[in-house]
Amino acid sequence: MRLCGRYVIVTDSNLHTLYGEPLLAGFRRRGLPADLVSFPAGEGSKSRRVRDEIEDAIIRLGAGRDTALVALGGGVVGDLVGFVAATFNRGIPFVQIPTTLIGMVDSSIGGKTGINHEAGKNFIGAFHQPAGVFIDINFLASLPRRHFVSGMAEVIKCGVIADRTLFMLLEKRTERIARKSPDILVRIIEACCRVKVRVVGDDLKESNRRKILNFGHTIGHALETLSGYSLAHGEAIAIGMVAEARIASRIGLLSSAAVERISSLLSQTGLPTVLPAATDIQAVLAVARRDKKARSGRIAYALPTRIGAMAHQGGDYGTVVDDRIAVEVLAGMKMPREPSPPIPIEPRTS
Amino acid sequence: MRLCGRYVIVTDSNLHTLYGEPLLAGFRRRGLPADLVSFPAGEGSKSRRVRDEIEDAIIRLGAGRDTALVALGGGVVGDLVGFVAATFNRGIPFVQIPTTLIGMVDSSIGGKTGINHEAGKNFIGAFHQPAGVFIDINFLASLPRRHFVSGMAEVIKCGVIADRTLFMLLEKRTERIARKSPDILVRIIEACCRVKVRVVGDDLKESNRRKILNFGHTIGHALETLSGYSLAHGEAIAIGMVAEARIASRIGLLSSAAVERISSLLSQTGLPTVLPAATDIQAVLAVARRDKKARSGRIAYALPTRIGAMAHQGGDYGTVVDDRIAVEVLAGMKMPREPSPPIPIEPRTS
Repeated sequence: MRLCGRYVIVTDSNLHTLYGEPLLAGFRRRGLPADLVSFPAGEGSKSRRVRDEIEDAIIRLGAGRDTALVALGGGVVGDLVGFVAATFNRGIPFVQIPTTLIGMVDSSIGGKTGINHEAGKNFIGAFHQPAGVFIDINFLASLPRRHFVSGMAEVIKCGVIADRTLFMLLEKRTERIARKSPDILVRIIEACCRVKVRVVGDDLKESNRRKILNFGHTIGHALETLSGYSLAHGEAIAIGMVAEARIASRIGLLSSAAVERISSLLSQTGLPTVLPAATDIQAVLAVARRDKKARSGRIAYALPTRIGAMAHQGGDYGTVVDDRIAVEVLAGMKMPREPSPPIPIEPRTS
Repeated sequence: MRLCGRYVIVTDSNLHTLYGEPLLAGFRRRGLPADLVSFPAGEGSKSRRVRDEIEDAIIRLGAGRDTALVALGGGVVGDLVGFVAATFNRGIPFVQIPTTLIGMVDSSIGGKTGINHEAGKNFIGAFHQPAGVFIDINFLASLPRRHFVSGMAEVIKCGVIADRTLFMLLEKRTERIARKSPDILVRIIEACCRVKVRVVGDDLKESNRRKILNFGHTIGHALETLSGYSLAHGEAIAIGMVAEARIASRIGLLSSAAVERISSLLSQTGLPTVLPAATDIQAVLAVARRDKKARSGRIAYALPTRIGAMAHQGGDYGTVVDDRIAVEVLAGMKMPREPSPPIPIEPRTS
């Protein structure tokens, strides 16, 4: 990273004292002009109001084109600070220092930034690549279990969409991962970063292959929005992955054995796989239809054909599926069912 | 332009009925799904509030990734609608249909979009290239004289920074231009578009040569901000060009004869060249220092070395000038002086 005229570290209220102040002291010790700004922790801060407040705060600190922002925190911090950087003085550099698993394996890489709108997640946003991403797994030691497990949903997604070996490793090492054993953490985080960089690399603006990263997210984002963000992102997309895997199976793209493997791994990892009883299925589809992936009101899904490979038609990775099929699948996910035993061997290979 | 799923034409309150409704009818006649949205005319609309309102309006109309925005209007419409397009669903296409001279010769080309902040013009914004720019000089027939003259400031700027032939044409044809003679309008608009495309082409993110387009704008933007936008953009940058040309002369970059030619042409065109008597010079510099072009608090200017060429040091087109020189120059511009006769031949050529 080239040196900038000044740095503003932006973090959230939970991390301000724990990690923000020591990092600020580190910058200053090295003679780098830096300041520290924080905002209330939580997805609710991915809002117009908090974005405006951060902009006002960095303007008060004298930030200009020579300033770099340092996003210290989880996905919310990265998305929000990245977006401020994307639109401040028509774009200033920013650096990601993810402190959560979801940040390390997913949101810090790829340049997606944005805030939420009542109409949907990340409805307002921009593509803006970070100047650098610094990953230190020591941050994970203090990460609450629910957030760690939520991050595992994106790790499992990486396996499903592009890395069969990773998926099998996750199936085999569930327990060591739960204990946050450093060697396995480094392995899975590296594998995810590789998947993300590979997929994003050739498709910076999400015109095509990058769509595969949305597996589980079309339904998942809608559930997250409708829950008022009481569902964690990973929890919502875990349910979304089960729903979308079942949709893929229902239209003949994916074997039911693969659906069960995905569902079992999510469940063993501690993630939800059924729909909250109160879910309004029509509302889910209405929100998904307003999703960025929708085309003229029809919902397009990123769907797997097997563990490690995604469906495409002539290079287009979005599959439009009739709403009636989605309604059927979602309705079938409402009541908790008897758990099926995991099936270790996937019979279908095409 | 590729066909999109749907179009939203965005214009301002002055143009809604005059040009917006006929354009909407044109889209619909050709079977293209389109809607029309408008906001109050004026620079004051380049605000967070109006940006949010446009976003909400297009979301209510069902806009998604398959939507293109059509910016129909002057620079304010283009900057604002371009910015909404830049950050809606992480970027959707937009088309510029400039209806003002300043839009045709400057703001519609180059992808600069943004809104104002009380700290400065375009403080919040992004680079987002339009999918196309449609120029029809018939719009200029109804353009009020003050706006037309304001646009001429950017035309003159194009001559100073990169097109000596254009500058001489402007000196010779002042009267025919004032009469909006179509053949001369097409010639000067084409010349300006060529300059803009050439300068912007190799420097999409304003890292280097593109800075020359800021001639007159460092001081000019500050004056515009401090006037509360009672000075039109072109009026403010006309004064800014005189100030920055004099700064260039004061530090030995530009001949005083060239300064006089620039000042005379602006004045013959009907643009102001002196500082409003009430101007607080320290406030001007304070605002300019917060400008995007400032570096660690020192103001960098884009300065001409002669009509048609700009100063650079090792490829860097920003020249840092001591504030004391700027204060001196601005103080000397406060009282109206005896107009000097235009000097047709520029003695200094290096």
